[in-house]
This record gives sequence, structure tokens and C-alpha cells, in this order.
Amino acid sequence: MSSRGITRLALTAEEEGARELVRSWLAPLGYQCTQDDAGNLHCRTGEGPRLLVGSHLDTVPQGGAYDGALGVVAAAEVAEALHQAGIAVPLQVVAWTGEEGPRFGTGLFGSGAACGLLPEGAWERRDAAGVSALEAAAELFGRPVDPGSVELDRQQIGAYLELHIEQASTLERRGCPLGVVSAIVGLHHGRVHVHGRADHAGATAMGERKDALAAAAECVLAVEEVSSVAAGGAIATVGEIEVRPGAQNVVPGTATFSLDVRSVSAERRADAVAAIADRVERICTRRGLTWRVERLGEATQVPMTEEVAGALATGCERLGVEAPRLPSMAGHDAQNLAAIGVPTGMLFVRSTNGSHNPDEHADAADAALGAQALLLACASL
Amino acid sequence: MSSRGITRLALTAEEEGARELVRSWLAPLGYQCTQDDAGNLHCRTGEGPRLLVGSHLDTVPQGGAYDGALGVVAAAEVAEALHQAGIAVPLQVVAWTGEEGPRFGTGLFGSGAACGLLPEGAWERRDAAGVSALEAAAELFGRPVDPGSVELDRQQIGAYLELHIEQASTLERRGCPLGVVSAIVGLHHGRVHVHGRADHAGATAMGERKDALAAAAECVLAVEEVSSVAAGGAIATVGEIEVRPGAQNVVPGTATFSLDVRSVSAERRADAVAAIADRVERICTRRGLTWRVERLGEATQVPMTEEVAGALATGCERLGVEAPRLPSMAGHDAQNLAAIGVPTGMLFVRSTNGSHNPDEHADAADAALGAQALLLACASL
Repeated sequence: MSSRGITRLALTAEEEGARELVRSWLAPLGYQCTQDDAGNLHCRTGEGPRLLVGSHLDTVPQGGAYDGALGVVAAAEVAEALHQAGIAVPLQVVAWTGEEGPRFGTGLFGSGAACGLLPEGAWERRDAAGVSALEAAAELFGRPVDPGSVELDRQQIGAYLELHIEQASTLERRGCPLGVVSAIVGLHHGRVHVHGRADHAGATAMGERKDALAAAAECVLAVEEVSSVAAGGAIATVGEIEVRPGAQNVVPGTATFSLDVRSVSAERRADAVAAIADRVERICTRRGLTWRVERLGEATQVPMTEEVAGALATGCERLGVEAPRLPSMAGHDAQNLAAIGVPTGMLFVRSTNGSHNPDEHADAADAALGAQALLLACASL
Repeated sequence: MSSRGITRLALTAEEEGARELVRSWLAPLGYQCTQDDAGNLHCRTGEGPRLLVGSHLDTVPQGGAYDGALGVVAAAEVAEALHQAGIAVPLQVVAWTGEEGPRFGTGLFGSGAACGLLPEGAWERRDAAGVSALEAAAELFGRPVDPGSVELDRQQIGAYLELHIEQASTLERRGCPLGVVSAIVGLHHGRVHVHGRADHAGATAMGERKDALAAAAECVLAVEEVSSVAAGGAIATVGEIEVRPGAQNVVPGTATFSLDVRSVSAERRADAVAAIADRVERICTRRGLTWRVERLGEATQVPMTEEVAGALATGCERLGVEAPRLPSMAGHDAQNLAAIGVPTGMLFVRSTNGSHNPDEHADAADAALGAQALLLACASL
């Protein structure tokens, strides 16, 4: 494995070190910095309801410098700018723990804990070394932790604003440094099972085969095509595939593949899922195979709050920046805040080379514009 | 797992029981029945050089009644018919041990041992329970076994004849009960590695993806097409596929799939392999991905001996049966005998429902014709 990139996983010394750095910036400004038992760092000033502003500090393994951290740094910049300008805005800078899922298999961990939205058993999930999230937190903080104590005081929060790099390249393609998130994508997770017949690789003529992998291959390309035709309205991915018996000299008898379909429109998502199911049916029928489409999970899209999105858009406008409204095709901590009714908005900063890799990149100039727009939005809210 | 079918694996009590049955038929006819340390059963009459006639008695797990056993039963029928007719042909009925590979991962085990063609370490390979072939043989026979003692006395063998069900459906399609094997297929085993880029399944627009699975899916269909176009001249199969990182929400960064290409013509096999490599190159180039084609192994085709094949063809002719010459697209013990220079021929009996499954089937009338043709060939040789 290459050693490139930044690896700062949930509830590790690396993540804690990043929080310590943020604390070292904000405490001198008079911010009251506390950490809850999920590790979330909250730095408060003024009396509530406050504007909650932040993002996360963890990365995927061998990730980049911007996904997450940029939003916390921008929030700290906003705090410093307000402090220097002598403007008293009730502000709460937040650094959510473990937004990425890889260590314990739970994404949006810190915000989920704070919003009471963690999936059952999330604290007990273990990493590859067998350490649970509960144990990791206790060891990191040097004291027993109480998951029940982690709770955001909803009444103390007026709105939530998060700046994040765009993980897609819409802004890059459109030549825009900033974008205002309209909604966070909804998600369909499924699995397709194709049943053919395992056969001797030498003795079974092509016309007599019921090759589950060949059928699945057609389905994979159909998913790609449906997704391309949907042209951003929905995006679909096959990330996993498994064939059985899985021997080089046996025609595959069964194939199973995963399905990830995303859209900010429930209707378009449903349309794409239906189009894929229809293609699977046609492919398998033509080949004389049977199939089963399994529905694993569905997450509803989360619209951002117009009041907050509008403030962010106005902030961009005042900077003379054309900031298109665009959906977020990835999940973010913001969706948890929106889910518990906090007025929520997100600002995207143009990024090159996607995200979750060492090459993800946001220009300093774009990042500065983003922090300024965030500042203006905070001031106007 | 269904309990259908016959499971009679190498060096098990089930296989030994089948040998015991054959011995019980031939010993009363005056045949001298011995078993070598690989478990191969040899039943001899007359002085050498003898005609060696037989096949194997083991099956794949949940296999059928015909693959292997039919050839041993037919050889015993030949022995009995010659005995009843009072014709003295120096004959050696053989039942090879473990022609199928599943228990120890070594196909053509018994004939390989007898012909000195076993791959290195074959006796030490272990089954799922951790028992090696050496240990299994010692336990089954109730005595230590000496792999070095297993050897066919080449000088005592005039020719080898094997009757077997056709594992393909050529005879069935052509309406012929019997066929004379022209050659045993040659084999290319390879692996194709496709390198794309792992990306976020939501945030990476379709046009920006370097999806290794989508490329591999195109390649799988290209393999199918090349094989179909070759129309029996060569047959190609993708039996295994693996993608990484292999998560439902990540565009696959790499995909690796196996390649099994067979033909009785080295040229056609090479043509098909080259055509597949060309298609892989074009697909990956168009998609902006890199790839590597790995060559794992090559087994040369084994032509049958014309003298023996001719005798089998003449036998069929005398029965008024049109028996086409056709290749065997699967491996057989006969290839080991041919490889050590024994004049070798094979007779195929029409089979329905392929082989290696409980539904494989040869009609009693076809099987009887096969045994008669085998008898006539033995008598003429």
C-alpha cells in the first residue's frame, strides 16, 4: 500500500490532534471549548440560539487535506474575522467526529450521536483491530464515556452552516469557485442476484450456456447506461460483484452485484431503479436466466433550508461570485442537523481531483472566497 | 446444499466400493485384479502387450451416474462379451482413481500417477478436512502407500481405449449416438487485470469515472463474443471476477478476471487469445484505463492415435452407426496415456444435460451401442 495521503480516522490520536489545533485557535478568542463523549468539539461564544458552523476533521484512509478539514478551518476563520471586527455573533464552531465511515463502518458518527440518529449498535461496532467505538473513545479520552450523554441542545442552535469541498466536479466544469447546496442526495441501496447454470467451461457450447456472469456484465453496462442517460438526475454504481462457483474452468452459475442509485429527486431515483430493474429483466429473460432484485435500504433526500441557503447565496453574490445551486451527491453531517429540524445550509468550494484521495485540491483563493461567503451568511443570519 | 446426485470422490470408501463391484464382475471371469498404491484398479487377462480399456469411477460432488463410470462398465462388458464368445484378447480393464479434481485439487490423479505425469506435490495436497492424498490412500487401503511404486508398465500396453459420455452436446444436436474423438482440447489459462480509479459513487459524474468493473463487464462480453464468433473452433470462458475496493458506494478501481480458452487447434486457441487481448486493449483504451494480460498456463492439445480412432470408427460403422469425428473439449485420462506414447483412442456416447450434474444422462441403447463398438475395436486391434 502506498503511504501517500492523509489518514486521520475517527477517534484516533491523529483526529484528536487536529481538534487540539482548532481549540488552540479559538480558546484565545474567548471561545468556550468543550468536547462531548463522541469526541465532537464545540467552541462557543455568546448566548444561544447560536449559529452552528463547522464540518469534520477525520479523513478516509490515504485521503486528502480538504475533505472535512476545510469546513472546520473556514468556521474558525469566520470566528476570528468576527472577533477581529468586534461583531458579536452567537457562534458555535463544531468539529464532528468520524464523518467518514471506514474505521467502525459508521459514517456521520459524531453528528449522528449528537442528533440522536446513530444506527443501533454503532458504538459497539469494532475496527479491524477489534476495538469498538466505545472503547476507542474511552481510551482516547482517558475516561469512561457515556453515549447517552452526547446530545445537541436543539434549543441552543439557530441554524447550521457547513462549508465543504464539492466532491463532484460540477463547479470545476462550470468555472465557479463556489456553489450553494440545494439538497443532499437520497440513496437507494440494492442487490441483484442472477441465477444461471454452472457448466463445464470446455464442454458447454456457447449457445447452450446460461452464464450468470455474462448476464451480470450486461446488467453492469445497463446500469452505467441508465445512469448516463439520467445525466446527473440520478447516478448509479455497481461497486461489488461476486460469482459462484467462481472457478476459472466453470461457467458461472450465479452472479450477485450491488446497486447504489442516488438522486436528490425521489422520483428520478425511483425511475432509475425501475429502469435498471427493467433492463435486468430484459437481459435475463433474453438469456433464459432467472433473477431477483433485492432492496437493501433507502435514504430520503434532504433539502437544505431556503433561509440558510439564501443567506449563503447572498453572501456569494456580495462577493461578486456566481454560485450555482447544486445538489450534494454525497452524504454530509448537515443532513443529520436538517433531519432534526435545524435550519441548515451548505456551501461547496470548487475542488479538483474529486475527494477521498491525496490529490483532492481546493485553491487557496477559492477557499478564501468560501470562508468570506460563510462569514457574510453568518453575519446576515 | 441439495442432496441430489452422486458424490463419489477420489480415495473414498465410495470410490473403493465401486472398484470392489468391478472386481466382483471380472475376477469370476479369471481376470487377475490388482490395485496400485494410487488406487487404480487393473484387471488383466492374457499376456502383454494388452489392450488397456477403461475410465474412472469417481464423480464431482453431486455429479451424475455416467461421467466416468460408464466407460468402466463398458470395458467390463467388453471383457464379459469376449469371455462368453471364447475370444482370447489380451485385455486389461482399468478404473483410474480420481479423474475429477475437486477433493485434492488434482485432476487425472490416478492416470497421472501411473504415467508419471502428476504435478509436483500432488500427493501432499490436502482436502477440505486437511487430509492429504497420501494419507487418504493409506487410510483407505489400511497400509502405508508408496507413490514411487505406481507405474504403468508401458511395454505391457499395446493401446488405450476409453469410452466416455460426451460432456458437450454435439452428438445430441447431430442426432448421433456415438462419436470418435479426434483430439483432446488444448487449454490457455490467463488472468486480465483492469486498472481504473476508485471514486465516490455519488460524487463522481459518469463522464469522469474510470470504472474498472464497467470496463471488465465489456471485456467479459467481448470474451463471450469472440468465443461465439469462433463457433466451436475455440471456446472461451470467464469463470472468476473480483473488484476492488469492492464496496457498494465506491466505483471499482480495479477488476481482475480469469480467462479459460480451449481449442484442439493451437492456432485457433492463439487466435482467440489474441482477439480477446485486442478487445481488452480497445475497451480499456477507449475508457482511459490501463490493463495487463497475464498468462497462467498453457496445455497443448493431444491428438488421438489414428490407428485406434480408426478401429473405433470401423466398429461404429459395422454397427451401422454414423459416428462423427469430434474433439473433446474437456480433459480425460486418455491424454496422459497419449502423452507417454501409448496409441490412444476415445469413443464418446451421446449425453443429455451435459455432465457434472445429477441430470447427465446416456440412453441405455446408446450405451449398449458404445460398448459394442468398443468390443469390435478391441477385437480388431
